[in-house]
Amino acid sequence: MEILSVNAGSSSLKFTLIELPFEKVVVSGTFEKIGIDGSFYTIKYNGEKIKKEVELKNHTDAVKILMNELIDMKILDSYDDLDGVGHRVLHGGDTYFDSIIITPEVEDKIEELFPLGPLHNPANLAGIRSFKEILPNTPQVAVFDTAFHQTMDAEEYLYAVPMEWYEKFSVRKYGFHGTSHKYIAQKMREILGEDKKIISCHLGNGASLCAIKDGKCVDTSMGFTPLAGFIMGTRSGDIDPSIIPYVMEKTNKTAAEIVTDLNKKSGMLALSGVSSDMRDIEEAYLNKDPRSVRAMNMYIKHIANYLSMYNTLLEGAEYIVFTAGVGENSDIVRKLLIDKFKFMGVKLDEEKNSTRGITGEISTEDSTIKVVVLPTNEELMIAKDTYDLINKE
Amino acid sequence: MEILSVNAGSSSLKFTLIELPFEKVVVSGTFEKIGIDGSFYTIKYNGEKIKKEVELKNHTDAVKILMNELIDMKILDSYDDLDGVGHRVLHGGDTYFDSIIITPEVEDKIEELFPLGPLHNPANLAGIRSFKEILPNTPQVAVFDTAFHQTMDAEEYLYAVPMEWYEKFSVRKYGFHGTSHKYIAQKMREILGEDKKIISCHLGNGASLCAIKDGKCVDTSMGFTPLAGFIMGTRSGDIDPSIIPYVMEKTNKTAAEIVTDLNKKSGMLALSGVSSDMRDIEEAYLNKDPRSVRAMNMYIKHIANYLSMYNTLLEGAEYIVFTAGVGENSDIVRKLLIDKFKFMGVKLDEEKNSTRGITGEISTEDSTIKVVVLPTNEELMIAKDTYDLINKE
Repeated sequence: MEILSVNAGSSSLKFTLIELPFEKVVVSGTFEKIGIDGSFYTIKYNGEKIKKEVELKNHTDAVKILMNELIDMKILDSYDDLDGVGHRVLHGGDTYFDSIIITPEVEDKIEELFPLGPLHNPANLAGIRSFKEILPNTPQVAVFDTAFHQTMDAEEYLYAVPMEWYEKFSVRKYGFHGTSHKYIAQKMREILGEDKKIISCHLGNGASLCAIKDGKCVDTSMGFTPLAGFIMGTRSGDIDPSIIPYVMEKTNKTAAEIVTDLNKKSGMLALSGVSSDMRDIEEAYLNKDPRSVRAMNMYIKHIANYLSMYNTLLEGAEYIVFTAGVGENSDIVRKLLIDKFKFMGVKLDEEKNSTRGITGEISTEDSTIKVVVLPTNEELMIAKDTYDLINKE
Repeated sequence: MEILSVNAGSSSLKFTLIELPFEKVVVSGTFEKIGIDGSFYTIKYNGEKIKKEVELKNHTDAVKILMNELIDMKILDSYDDLDGVGHRVLHGGDTYFDSIIITPEVEDKIEELFPLGPLHNPANLAGIRSFKEILPNTPQVAVFDTAFHQTMDAEEYLYAVPMEWYEKFSVRKYGFHGTSHKYIAQKMREILGEDKKIISCHLGNGASLCAIKDGKCVDTSMGFTPLAGFIMGTRSGDIDPSIIPYVMEKTNKTAAEIVTDLNKKSGMLALSGVSSDMRDIEEAYLNKDPRSVRAMNMYIKHIANYLSMYNTLLEGAEYIVFTAGVGENSDIVRKLLIDKFKFMGVKLDEEKNSTRGITGEISTEDSTIKVVVLPTNEELMIAKDTYDLINKE
């Protein structure tokens, strides 16, 4: 089966065509600057990457061009040759515990959830509607970033705030990166043949940890929005809420503007003064730039905080899994972080850890918690969920 | 020496007269509803408590009446008989690392810090000025709630927010309850004859944890304000900052009003729907009231989070010390909390733990971390700091 895995942003559309059940990535690419001057798209196929400039008024234009390209490239014979489309959707609220075939009711619900995912849900829905317009008979599936975390208990997802904020306004912890954490949970089960107590560390520009038991999310670090948790590329993570009205008064900004600053101008970018990109910060760290050293130490400490909490929550984790950009590629971050747990017998095999492109165990034989690097694959997870739901129908 | 330990609130003034160096509490009491109808004061002396209604226009009235009462009761012969007054002051900013003899410059600085401690510093200063008026020749000492935490590294006290918020507006972690945590650090050193790695758990209606190494604060859970950290009686602790603009829009409240809700209408009060008082919640918990059970579990989990973090930060804590109202009196909270760490060999001696009024070790011989109950004594700590500074002069 040919499944298209799609991530529609407000002015972009990423796609990966995957053949299931053999998980073969056939072609991938991105449409960018949709609805903006200078729009273009790139396609990666057979190890080559082509880029074409073209007018893209909206997501529907992008979908049309994509389908025609796939036919021109002889990847598909016709529109009907595509068996399903899986859409990444940011927010499923507390309605969706799993991926679901998109019906008009599902579209309505995604729209109803716009206030909870104001930046992403509208774009995700635009992507869905464009594909529905061009491929009205092809099954479409919504894969929610929040769904995997819906197994959290109320004790984990409630905030200690006035109850009507939850009851009337749906203020609670949702958690994000669920598709990635689910992929890690499933992959670890596949590899080990059973469910272990896992702390999944998705460290990218956005980042979250997830405590996983019996293949299910027990707790996760992101909250009501992806701003919550620990320090990220440009995000502050949780802070003393009193800071907001105080800084509002000092700067004459609105609360929304302050929260935008906390999302876009904070985190490693603010601390290092160098960049939000961990590769730049690592370089500055190795060159002993004082602000980057401090930023790195704070980043490590904040992640260590969540590792410590989740180790207790799981009553002793069995595996720490590193994934996503920083998690997969930064041996420095992994080393600094795991060294914080030496005192409890967690030990890194430094040679393995520093091997470029390592996948698999990087802890020593006698480490009390095993440490693993495992590349995440959200596109594949989306395609697999789509494949499974189509075959269930 | 006769030292008066004072805590002046906006409409109250608490006092304890202590004889140093023998740490004998001579008399204590409170003036209440200062500047409000129905003002009165209570005095505890020789096991008796008297209450008198009297007009108190301001703090100076209270100080005059207090001094005259002390003379009438023949506790003091004259005003000059009082050797010093120690004042609790909430916020010392990043200026005061320790207690200090109050000069006009110190008064100015306390005033300069009003924006950081808008509810407490003005009242604390009113108390100081009233005593100076009545006792112009008696040494006065300021004991700051933030001072003990000033040993934190920048890596602990900085937030990952735009740097100008720190540089221009002093947004950073300060920490509070410093006088209590300092008392615990000193008392533990006195008892053990050396400094151990301690997690001091000050659990009252307000609550904070402090990681202590070499007798110094390494990190603490409260932040820019006392709202930060974990769930308290009426406070939320840290939350996703995005909640503030979202709830502002839903409720038409200002950011300041939302933060007031987070300080006064949140925490255990919001979760249990019963009370902010742990005694009420414990009763409801034992009666299996579902909301109180959930509230209690959340409270325990949030404190366990900080215990876990600080255990890692200290690379293995040696002592967990419980203090303040809940910490000293709630065997249920202590048991539920320490049980979370059974998996790492921390074990409670349940008989000792459930002994009413227990002071001292409550862990088993083989517990990997020793657990101790130790009553805090902020009044004594204030008096001791005052005594020490007067003798140094």
